[in-house]
Amino acid sequence: MTDKKISAEQTRREEDLVREVIASFDGTPDPRLKEIMQSLVQHLHNFVREVRLSESEWDKMIEFLTAVGHITDDWRQEFILLSDVLGVSMQTVAVNNEAYKDATEATVFGPFFVQDAPLIEIGGDIAGGAPGQACWVEGRVTDTDGNPIGGARIEVWEADDDGFYDVQYNDGRIAARAHLFSDADGNYSFWALTPTPYPIPYDGPVGKMLTATNRSPVRASHLHFMVTAAKARTLVTHIFVDGCEYMRRDSVFGVKDSLIKQFHLQAGDTPTPDGRDLGGQPWTRAKFDIVLAPEGVDGH
Amino acid sequence: MTDKKISAEQTRREEDLVREVIASFDGTPDPRLKEIMQSLVQHLHNFVREVRLSESEWDKMIEFLTAVGHITDDWRQEFILLSDVLGVSMQTVAVNNEAYKDATEATVFGPFFVQDAPLIEIGGDIAGGAPGQACWVEGRVTDTDGNPIGGARIEVWEADDDGFYDVQYNDGRIAARAHLFSDADGNYSFWALTPTPYPIPYDGPVGKMLTATNRSPVRASHLHFMVTAAKARTLVTHIFVDGCEYMRRDSVFGVKDSLIKQFHLQAGDTPTPDGRDLGGQPWTRAKFDIVLAPEGVDGH
Repeated sequence: MTDKKISAEQTRREEDLVREVIASFDGTPDPRLKEIMQSLVQHLHNFVREVRLSESEWDKMIEFLTAVGHITDDWRQEFILLSDVLGVSMQTVAVNNEAYKDATEATVFGPFFVQDAPLIEIGGDIAGGAPGQACWVEGRVTDTDGNPIGGARIEVWEADDDGFYDVQYNDGRIAARAHLFSDADGNYSFWALTPTPYPIPYDGPVGKMLTATNRSPVRASHLHFMVTAAKARTLVTHIFVDGCEYMRRDSVFGVKDSLIKQFHLQAGDTPTPDGRDLGGQPWTRAKFDIVLAPEGVDGH
Repeated sequence: MTDKKISAEQTRREEDLVREVIASFDGTPDPRLKEIMQSLVQHLHNFVREVRLSESEWDKMIEFLTAVGHITDDWRQEFILLSDVLGVSMQTVAVNNEAYKDATEATVFGPFFVQDAPLIEIGGDIAGGAPGQACWVEGRVTDTDGNPIGGARIEVWEADDDGFYDVQYNDGRIAARAHLFSDADGNYSFWALTPTPYPIPYDGPVGKMLTATNRSPVRASHLHFMVTAAKARTLVTHIFVDGCEYMRRDSVFGVKDSLIKQFHLQAGDTPTPDGRDLGGQPWTRAKFDIVLAPEGVDGH
């Protein structure tokens, strides 16, 4: 349908309508709201005109959004899932964390961060009893000139080996999350779990859309970080496990090449960095050097 | 923010992301669904990138959509209202009813059509007891070559003088709606009510958005038509009352210049066309000639 000839009169009618709708927002008192609404109108109309959306397709979109609205409650946020699987969440992250020198790239925040996760010492364990393979993570926090950032607050969180975050059990447990601070030289290290892939909730309308489009709901294996320090731009990111089979089809488009890290598998008889006894079980180790941009570099 | 310089590296990251999301739909089995999803992604990302949507603005959009979802039930369809006030419904009508010679323009269907409205004779009254000023409507149905179309089914419906459609009373009444057929020469006429303006529901999130943007929820005074005939494209439209103060700010952008009609006010002592006794009350009369396009002219 998109290669169909549209007459000059038809084009005039469609463009007049777009102008009329945009003009209807001219009196918006807040200039930023006006800018957002007028841009949204322009791009939504571009979409409808480009695909020549049929009335029955419009009906289906209304039905779909209605179903997304009805499954959403205090526990389930299907609109965020929808934004995630359309890459809109990740694009919002991109425009709010602009490239700056070699600053570490950001990725999606996700719904599973919790305030006031336990404080651990450098070298401590975030697992809190969660099942999974032990993983030693270490690195250094610096600014974009290579200067160490001591006292940076590093929040880390992840799913357990069964693919669930602690909060998904709804039993009040706190596990596989913690925060620590970098030392005076910017160094940090901790024990965590080797990340494993897990699906986003796919029993709702967003899952149906993924199925209809032959897409996977699975997120590539990752460990979440949020790093804050004085005069630095806050970094929300993940590191991803190199070799994960879902790396090129992460359901929410969070993967950046620069965030894919080697999680080196260690035999059970390999001595641990801090002498911890893992009972002869194999473990992994990964390195993640974190570079923070100065605050305010992209106008936030 | 939109005049801010975006670096080449930042642009590359944003464009790579759009390409990645579009490519994720490459395996969609249904080619039309693939086309729609890929176009939707492109235009949503264009929007986010153009306005440089902040994360807190993204949060507000999620909250807004959540509220739209939660007020929507079997009686209230806030997503349709949202589509309406953004002109998306009207643009969908436009692309599905392409300009063809002098065929009468289409406009929005609205939520108040009812199947099986009463049959009236030519010259009959659709009011069914609904309050309002009497209005005589007449015209002729033809094709785009000027040939009369006899036996065209003409559905008409409208709000009463209090601004409500019969179905909004929830008491089973049937009023201010009917259907009739054009005669062998294509002529039709009926008594109705002089249309009056009324607001779309504005006590929900869409109403809040209209308030925040200084827009009115009011629809310009109109009378609905749906006209069907063999081998003709179905026409869904309104006629609007010339002089209505809301004509240039119809909340759903349904107005087309060609659909604005004179509703000539008649003094109470003016004889009616069919001799009907209106008890000395003033009335109005309007003329609406209907030109139907042939079926299939825009590929439907």
